Amino acid sequence: MASEIKSDKVNMKALAKVLNVSIATVSKALRDSHDIGPETKLRVIEEARKLNYVPNPYASSLRKKASNTIAIIIPEIADSFFSQAINGIESVVAIKKYHTLIYLTHDSYEREAYMFGELASGRVDGVIMSVASNTEDTKHIKTLQDSGIPIVFFDRVFDDIKSVKITTDDFNSAYTATNHLLDAGCKNISLITIKGYPSILSAREEGYQQALAEKGIHPRESSVVTCSNKYNNENVEVIKEHLAKVKPDGIIATVEHLATSTYLACDEMKLNIPKDVKVACFTNQITAPILNPPLTTILQPAYDMGKQAAQLLFDHLSGRYVETNKEIVLPSKLVVRASTAFN
Amino acid sequence: MASEIKSDKVNMKALAKVLNVSIATVSKALRDSHDIGPETKLRVIEEARKLNYVPNPYASSLRKKASNTIAIIIPEIADSFFSQAINGIESVVAIKKYHTLIYLTHDSYEREAYMFGELASGRVDGVIMSVASNTEDTKHIKTLQDSGIPIVFFDRVFDDIKSVKITTDDFNSAYTATNHLLDAGCKNISLITIKGYPSILSAREEGYQQALAEKGIHPRESSVVTCSNKYNNENVEVIKEHLAKVKPDGIIATVEHLATSTYLACDEMKLNIPKDVKVACFTNQITAPILNPPLTTILQPAYDMGKQAAQLLFDHLSGRYVETNKEIVLPSKLVVRASTAFN
Repeated sequence: MASEIKSDKVNMKALAKVLNVSIATVSKALRDSHDIGPETKLRVIEEARKLNYVPNPYASSLRKKASNTIAIIIPEIADSFFSQAINGIESVVAIKKYHTLIYLTHDSYEREAYMFGELASGRVDGVIMSVASNTEDTKHIKTLQDSGIPIVFFDRVFDDIKSVKITTDDFNSAYTATNHLLDAGCKNISLITIKGYPSILSAREEGYQQALAEKGIHPRESSVVTCSNKYNNENVEVIKEHLAKVKPDGIIATVEHLATSTYLACDEMKLNIPKDVKVACFTNQITAPILNPPLTTILQPAYDMGKQAAQLLFDHLSGRYVETNKEIVLPSKLVVRASTAFN
Repeated sequence: MASEIKSDKVNMKALAKVLNVSIATVSKALRDSHDIGPETKLRVIEEARKLNYVPNPYASSLRKKASNTIAIIIPEIADSFFSQAINGIESVVAIKKYHTLIYLTHDSYEREAYMFGELASGRVDGVIMSVASNTEDTKHIKTLQDSGIPIVFFDRVFDDIKSVKITTDDFNSAYTATNHLLDAGCKNISLITIKGYPSILSAREEGYQQALAEKGIHPRESSVVTCSNKYNNENVEVIKEHLAKVKPDGIIATVEHLATSTYLACDEMKLNIPKDVKVACFTNQITAPILNPPLTTILQPAYDMGKQAAQLLFDHLSGRYVETNKEIVLPSKLVVRASTAFN
């Protein structure tokens, strides 16, 4: 049957005819709607592929009343990772002559859910997001997806949402960094992290646990410290208390601002880095090499993650066929500096 | 005549009648249009004040088809000053349930001018901006103002544009920092800055020159170094060359990323900070106290500047009477650390 249709004439109507389903079913299946069962979806997608179906971007734009605006939804902006990722996104958005609407959730699920409600009204054509650290319920995200607005996730993603996701290899990075500390002679390594549910935090903790387990070390529960997700003096106090009680000889910090808090805590406790405690941190801060001492970092490809997220979103918006459930994992890099030097 | 009108009944029509001008003239004068001569403007504004004229926000909103969105236009985002200012703006915007459209000019006049063209179509109700460092021509800004969209400037402002402006005392800050270096024993202080025209850069340079002049020091032209406005390795090379040629014993860096470049350049030249060169920088980086050595900073009230800018914009948007040519100067703070310690 397929051969009866010329490839440059394939539209949704033709697809529907070949498949013997309604045009609405084809349309919904192609944008991965929850209304359509997995088998039908697969049939539609395979036929679309076989016939080289290319959606008409003009029709699509008219139907959707394109706003030529995309939203970037991120927890915060005072973080080198996010600012570099935004620069990566902007490098693509600028060429497309689109507008960028930046929303800060301040790491609050309530704000995030409220913002999603506002986005449903056609204000944006697509979304690039990194979820708030206390978001557990994903209904607001699924509702927006169902309304036909594509969402690309980066860094902080949800496993149970079908979408394009750009992440770094958080498990491996933490695993490598922990092994690096073990090789440098550490016997009692703590993980300093923030409260929250995103997959990156659990992957980083799992990588840390796995590296220790392989060396036969089973860290006490008290070796994992959770701080506030905002930079503040309280975190310094929490870390000081931990240093006094648990006396770690190595620390892995999972987010950028915890490096500053850890350094300040060590300084106030008169602990020398790296002699008394070795420190490695997930951070893209440009000041890492000029800290006292220079900081060993797990450097994420923030700019490239943003750029790829934007490219994939525009592939979707231009009507090009894209897989809607795809995970791209970019490698992070361990940059070794004096903060983890062997004594 | 004024006493004939009850204050709660004062509208533009009544004002026009009292002043014997057209309603359009009153309207234009109140939003500071360039179409109206300064004398007429003054008459209208004084009469409006005398009669406690309060514009009707609903009428105003209907007339303008409010988008409930404001634009923040800034040169870059990978800078603690701007990220903290955005957090200040957001603290107000969130309460008002408005949207924030963030535009990055990447410090390019061309991008800035293009963005302004896009904003004229009713996409936003107001703008908060910090100008690109190479913007000289202000026609794009005046055109948007004339279309009735209020613009509040912060940090990087233009003297020749009538508007609400929130700045810090850049002249005094640079003057104080330079005197601090002189008191610490410096005799040959360089200013490391970026290319550009904004008033903050010239005010910082003037403060530096004034402090030196008062001590009878007239720095050579070669004591002022201009770097690229982007963080990159080239800047490190430019500063290294300067250190080799001019051999300064003190450095004032005018923007955040130049601190990292200066530290790296000193490190590569085996110059000790503060023994060989003392360094102070305009920066809000949270890592300043943990650098090697801890960095003396000129700390700007970034969060408060953003917050006040947003409050003033919303005063304007809510139709409350606001002066349209007002400059608010908030004090910066010199935070002395080891990088400028007396030998």
